[in-house]
Amino acid sequence: MILRIAEIFGPTIQGEGALIGQPTVFIRTGGCDYRCSWCDSLHAVDSRYRHDWAVMDAQQIMAEVARLSGDQPLMVSISGGNPAIQDFSGVIALGRAQGYRFACETQGSVARDWFADLALLVLSPKPPSSGQETDWSAFDACLAAAKDAPRIMKIVIFDDHDLAWAREASTRYPDLALYLQPGNPETDPDLPVDPQSLADRMLWLVDATVGAGWLTPRILPQLHVLIWGNRRGV
Amino acid sequence: MILRIAEIFGPTIQGEGALIGQPTVFIRTGGCDYRCSWCDSLHAVDSRYRHDWAVMDAQQIMAEVARLSGDQPLMVSISGGNPAIQDFSGVIALGRAQGYRFACETQGSVARDWFADLALLVLSPKPPSSGQETDWSAFDACLAAAKDAPRIMKIVIFDDHDLAWAREASTRYPDLALYLQPGNPETDPDLPVDPQSLADRMLWLVDATVGAGWLTPRILPQLHVLIWGNRRGV
Repeated sequence: MILRIAEIFGPTIQGEGALIGQPTVFIRTGGCDYRCSWCDSLHAVDSRYRHDWAVMDAQQIMAEVARLSGDQPLMVSISGGNPAIQDFSGVIALGRAQGYRFACETQGSVARDWFADLALLVLSPKPPSSGQETDWSAFDACLAAAKDAPRIMKIVIFDDHDLAWAREASTRYPDLALYLQPGNPETDPDLPVDPQSLADRMLWLVDATVGAGWLTPRILPQLHVLIWGNRRGV
Repeated sequence: MILRIAEIFGPTIQGEGALIGQPTVFIRTGGCDYRCSWCDSLHAVDSRYRHDWAVMDAQQIMAEVARLSGDQPLMVSISGGNPAIQDFSGVIALGRAQGYRFACETQGSVARDWFADLALLVLSPKPPSSGQETDWSAFDACLAAAKDAPRIMKIVIFDDHDLAWAREASTRYPDLALYLQPGNPETDPDLPVDPQSLADRMLWLVDATVGAGWLTPRILPQLHVLIWGNRRGV
């Protein structure tokens, strides 16, 4: 089984969501069925970059993960792009046999049997500002495929419209733990990020949720953007 | 049962540790058996401020929590000072009957039966830079008192000496999930905080742990300092 891989990097800390702060090696897959207006990972999405993607099999991928982690089993996050357009069952089976655990982040447009083998499935449906439509029946199929695997929903919020959409999504899935994170309009890897503007976007989102009496979602920033800006490979 | 309370505020997001990002009302208790050199909550510690502390019973405390949360049950964090020098069993019993859940943050110097009723016990032993000594037998008694309640260990790190101490503590408690957070040397509530220096301290701590091959602790900043600086009541 051949897989297209945009980059493998780490260990570094997970910058967002339920595993925030956790030492992690990232496998960023190449290719996506979405094209979000504000995508911060176009180098793993746009097929213009496909010649930069490595073609690797499960053994090669796990050998690189083990090299990076010094053979210490840790959390491996499979992100993209959309990892679910490829078959990661072989990577996960091989890695789990070596003691690694896997998280996968996907928009929930394609269901895979290997979701059931994850330590965490992060489903991140895209709000209106992305320009994408969510197929909720595909999303439901992802939840079903995950069986008993832990799962959360994470939604990026750019504006009030996104926030209203997230609130509807949370009504649809009241038992799915929800994480919200402020959108990052500064995605150029060659430009510095202003930590104060990141703080200001968090303040806005906390005020618009907790401050308005919506007390169920957890609100988290992208720590890696705070620490490293939009640099790749960290 | 009369309790000394420095402040009750929220709902806001939990800024640190395992519940980071979670909407929370905070009960900050008055009084402490420690006096850390870098304490960021002296207004709840130094007995010089005791005339500012309210004297409240469990009914009054939960009435204030309910007023702040608009009667929506949520996570209540009992911090201080050291909450364990007072008896919060009545507050927790009353709040749980109303659907609230409780977390408590304490250094682990005083064990309490009510630790067993917590949704999370955060034990934060103080590293050498604090100027305090940890009594590990008292810490063990806290773990025993918590019975089956979820618990983590959180250690603030100012320097390499603190880091070596944390590593020893993690060896002593290999099954206790460990969270590290960079120390905050800027604690004056009247002075602004530089978000870049907070980012720099995170970068240092990630490099000194994950970058050095120590892959078990989770590394998190104090989000509330990023968002609000050292302002109180948020």
